[in-house]
Amino acid sequence: MKISERSAMALATRLLIQRNALTEHAECQARVLVEAELKGHPSHGLQRLPRIIARIERGHIDPRTKGEGFWRAEAVWDVDGRSGLGPVVAMAAVERLAERVVTSGIAIAAIRNNNHLGMLAHYVEHIAERGHVGVAMSSSEALVHPFGGTRAMLGTNPIAIAVPTAGRPLVLDLATSTVSMGKIHHYAATGRPMPEGWARDAEGKPTTDAARAKSGSIAPFGDAKGYGLGIAIEVLIAALAGSALAPDICGTLDAEALCNKGDILIVVNPKAAPELAQRLSDYLDSVRTSPPSEAGRPVAIPGDGASLRRAAALRDGFDIEPSLWDALNALSLSPSSVLEGQSF
Amino acid sequence: MKISERSAMALATRLLIQRNALTEHAECQARVLVEAELKGHPSHGLQRLPRIIARIERGHIDPRTKGEGFWRAEAVWDVDGRSGLGPVVAMAAVERLAERVVTSGIAIAAIRNNNHLGMLAHYVEHIAERGHVGVAMSSSEALVHPFGGTRAMLGTNPIAIAVPTAGRPLVLDLATSTVSMGKIHHYAATGRPMPEGWARDAEGKPTTDAARAKSGSIAPFGDAKGYGLGIAIEVLIAALAGSALAPDICGTLDAEALCNKGDILIVVNPKAAPELAQRLSDYLDSVRTSPPSEAGRPVAIPGDGASLRRAAALRDGFDIEPSLWDALNALSLSPSSVLEGQSF
Repeated sequence: MKISERSAMALATRLLIQRNALTEHAECQARVLVEAELKGHPSHGLQRLPRIIARIERGHIDPRTKGEGFWRAEAVWDVDGRSGLGPVVAMAAVERLAERVVTSGIAIAAIRNNNHLGMLAHYVEHIAERGHVGVAMSSSEALVHPFGGTRAMLGTNPIAIAVPTAGRPLVLDLATSTVSMGKIHHYAATGRPMPEGWARDAEGKPTTDAARAKSGSIAPFGDAKGYGLGIAIEVLIAALAGSALAPDICGTLDAEALCNKGDILIVVNPKAAPELAQRLSDYLDSVRTSPPSEAGRPVAIPGDGASLRRAAALRDGFDIEPSLWDALNALSLSPSSVLEGQSF
Repeated sequence: MKISERSAMALATRLLIQRNALTEHAECQARVLVEAELKGHPSHGLQRLPRIIARIERGHIDPRTKGEGFWRAEAVWDVDGRSGLGPVVAMAAVERLAERVVTSGIAIAAIRNNNHLGMLAHYVEHIAERGHVGVAMSSSEALVHPFGGTRAMLGTNPIAIAVPTAGRPLVLDLATSTVSMGKIHHYAATGRPMPEGWARDAEGKPTTDAARAKSGSIAPFGDAKGYGLGIAIEVLIAALAGSALAPDICGTLDAEALCNKGDILIVVNPKAAPELAQRLSDYLDSVRTSPPSEAGRPVAIPGDGASLRRAAALRDGFDIEPSLWDALNALSLSPSSVLEGQSF
């Protein structure tokens, strides 16, 4: 079934307000989930909302805090997320960085004790909209085995980068795993075999059986290099944020524990130079129009696909499983339970 | 043949001083090349010295400048390299960042008009030795085709990251291409076929013939994700440094033109937290001792191999092609030509 952005925002915001979220916080969290749907990434969309709600109800998310930060150095915003909603804490940090970067030129937020951010693209896009270069990184539970290893020791450790241009910004958002655990769950649900090389089972053996992979580990993308990038992000985040390392991380995938992963956000002011933004756009256009390896499939710039899908979804709505939409609606509280929710 | 670190440093330094380099600059450039040899990366080692010398002799490198910089914002060191020796300009920038980061917590250098840096690991290691997290990126000539494309549109765009720990730092240094052009030249010289998927020829067709690949393009590592990272680094460097984009870059591989690529260096002060450095070391050790996929081949942390090779090479010397060593010695100028060199 098709859902409009407006209906999705209204429902997600309402469900969160019913759990005692400030309206502004509910809208911020709903926006991140709905944006993922609009961009065609349902793994980071509304299917995450029931878990967020369960986490609020169990006290693992405080939907009324923005976290607490201080400038531990002139350009380093040190944040204790105080178990706030991930996007609320992160967006509050982005605001502080955007102010500071006017004089410092570069500023970084190092965040611990914060909940899941959802798609990192959202944050760096927001930064790029103001004309800044943005970088975001997050750590996660141990889900990825090292190159040459067999046991899950690393998080999926995504990184996002956005660079503004005279036209559409470049927006990169990638996990350093070959695939997401969400995709493996999707294969498991449908019973289809996975491509070789994606995952290992709990005993560390390569498997194409998604059901076995769920308790095992995912391969890093790009062999040794992708593994190298993933583990560098892992220790870089912990070194800067003081957050936990993958084997000790919990709370991004479950509703059982406080979340102790780390997030890094960086904002940089581009060089002010004549025609530079236009030169970047022209370059990206020259890559887009360079000869494709497959006729009729033009070369893409990171962010192009998401941007096109988003425009279409804003016009036509986005697809959602009717069972998920029903489940979300069923989470709406009656007036009496709303009162209970507010006394939480 | 085996060469000692001391002999290599002495020869390389002498050759550069004979071309009018300041002693300190000659030692800095020689150190970067010799360190690559010690770490087992001869593609970034002394074989690059004849071209550096030719570039000095043609006026494409000024071996007496450190470049000129200014703080374009409190934490952004904006550098015009003035065609100095790459490592000299970059190390001078690292010194400025190391001073500034004491108060700013994070600082970045954006460098244009600088010559080739050699192995980026060298710079971030230097940063990590002082207890800081280091990140380095460089752009280059168009050598890499986009994922889904067939024409060289991107540089090899390497990135290096070092994170200090209580033990050996993690030191990542990777090009975003599947292989280096140096390796393709090596295959071409030996006539061996290359593995499939490494490269395309000048017409954009996949090839395993290294001779044809030399005039073609290299594949990005890790398919769409590696391409995404490579093009994000490409535009990020240009946006921050105001340097050229790959199709317009020259001067890193040839002796014909001034070098117009860009370099980015970032220094960040880690969080001061009890036991954090030890926790990072313990984590890396747990990854090293996690079960390997191949018995007897333990999981490696980025930088481990280079560190072991360096220790062995400092003890036993490093291997060099006798023809290269002879060629380098032949570049030594007689006393009369030294005088010419100094009047250059």
